[in-house]
Amino acid sequence: MHSVEKIAFIGTGVMGFAMASNLLKKGFKLKVYNRTRAKAEPLAALGATVCDSVAEAVRDADVAISIVGMVSDVEETWLGADGILKNLPRGAIGVDMTTSSPSLARRLATKGEMLGLEIMDAPVTGGDVGARNGTLTILCGGRESTFKTLTPVFEGMGRTWVRFGEAGAGQLAKAANQIAIAAGMMALCESMVFAKKSGLDVPLLLETLGKGAAGSFSMQSYGPRILKGDFKPGFFVKHFVKDLRIALEVAQEHGLYLEGTALALKLYETLMQKGLSEAGTQALYRYYTRDFA
Amino acid sequence: MHSVEKIAFIGTGVMGFAMASNLLKKGFKLKVYNRTRAKAEPLAALGATVCDSVAEAVRDADVAISIVGMVSDVEETWLGADGILKNLPRGAIGVDMTTSSPSLARRLATKGEMLGLEIMDAPVTGGDVGARNGTLTILCGGRESTFKTLTPVFEGMGRTWVRFGEAGAGQLAKAANQIAIAAGMMALCESMVFAKKSGLDVPLLLETLGKGAAGSFSMQSYGPRILKGDFKPGFFVKHFVKDLRIALEVAQEHGLYLEGTALALKLYETLMQKGLSEAGTQALYRYYTRDFA
Repeated sequence: MHSVEKIAFIGTGVMGFAMASNLLKKGFKLKVYNRTRAKAEPLAALGATVCDSVAEAVRDADVAISIVGMVSDVEETWLGADGILKNLPRGAIGVDMTTSSPSLARRLATKGEMLGLEIMDAPVTGGDVGARNGTLTILCGGRESTFKTLTPVFEGMGRTWVRFGEAGAGQLAKAANQIAIAAGMMALCESMVFAKKSGLDVPLLLETLGKGAAGSFSMQSYGPRILKGDFKPGFFVKHFVKDLRIALEVAQEHGLYLEGTALALKLYETLMQKGLSEAGTQALYRYYTRDFA
Repeated sequence: MHSVEKIAFIGTGVMGFAMASNLLKKGFKLKVYNRTRAKAEPLAALGATVCDSVAEAVRDADVAISIVGMVSDVEETWLGADGILKNLPRGAIGVDMTTSSPSLARRLATKGEMLGLEIMDAPVTGGDVGARNGTLTILCGGRESTFKTLTPVFEGMGRTWVRFGEAGAGQLAKAANQIAIAAGMMALCESMVFAKKSGLDVPLLLETLGKGAAGSFSMQSYGPRILKGDFKPGFFVKHFVKDLRIALEVAQEHGLYLEGTALALKLYETLMQKGLSEAGTQALYRYYTRDFA
């Protein structure tokens, strides 16, 4: 059984920054790395050491955590010459919290095992609000013993952490989560644009419908942002597109065609083509209002 | 200001039966009518008078409530020779709680006004569970004064009642509600079938994801039924198809094309073609498992 003290934290975007902040507040010693160094620097004020490379950050870590953007970023962060697998001390734990592909998660776990490392996939759900408030749900795949060792770390970032099975299972659970969100976001946006065009009092409508069978986290969390015309990213369109592509690839391997998810992906890809890659997922509303200016 | 004592209740299906029961328990005097009389008869044990025609039920009512199936049933119930408008005493209130078209709601209100009747559209959300527990949300269109008079009646059936505007506004709000549910049900079913094919522990997954950004009333309410293979109607597929057709017609009048809702309608129409008209809306899961036997 390890005791976890020193954490390397790779990737301090919207989610990672908030998660690293919470770990620092819980008393963990963090070395942080971010490709755009400026985004990591404010963490120094909370006691983090800001590093210039992944290798530097992970070299003496008990646990290395990554939450980066794309699957290619995960590959580089973990498998590169400067990456986690080559530089994390033997016996340490690596946790990829990026939403990435289940097959890559299994590959990292296998390679890690050969190097004497314990690797877990642990993507999260709960959005930027959950990351800031430390109320994330953490979906884990990997060994039970690793999962147990990580309890205090998960406590520092989330409210719920569940192990779904061996390596890759966390990513599968996350894919299921994104599938459950994607068509639901269409539902919310379509309802709101319909209500607006119908001349209804949309804030009153959301408040009312939220108590009934149409109620959802998306309605509660994104409805008010859409009403205010706030399309800033909690969660980037470009990352959601990546997540949905992964989910549909796995679905296809299972012989499943998920039409609602495929349609949502198509609409989000349109948003990307229209220059909204860096908007938040609630910007799907702008697909329906054709507000691409 | 009326005082409401005698209620005529037309339509005692899954929803109507539960709503009429709750009104009886609150002490209202009910005359009930249902096309299939046997479905209304158990209400006699709670004190209702079971009638053989709409005319008989409404003849001396303070308030006539209808919750029937299709738009054509609403037309017959309200506009027929034996219907509500011809037989409800002048000065009384008529409330259509069926999910029906906004334009029909406006037409009934106009005709009612000419006859000295106050007509309100007041479709509900909250499902069969909400109907049984008296926790429905009631979405109203019509005059403010009528809405106020109906407060004790709404109290008898629901937990929330909101007036969205003049006649038809309740139906518009309900259409927005069905839009918010439809693609969301695709999202839930696609997530569940994906999880099952991925070998995940689906009950654990639903419990876990329900706490995060994918959480919804549908996941909470229908997820467990789908897991048990329980496709019995809370809410009929055939009625949902009707509701979505209404919603998409209105959307089209507004120049809106709601792709997610249109796709959900297409899948539900497939269920109907496969003989699942009378299943519950959660039977959408069977579209994805091709379980049409």
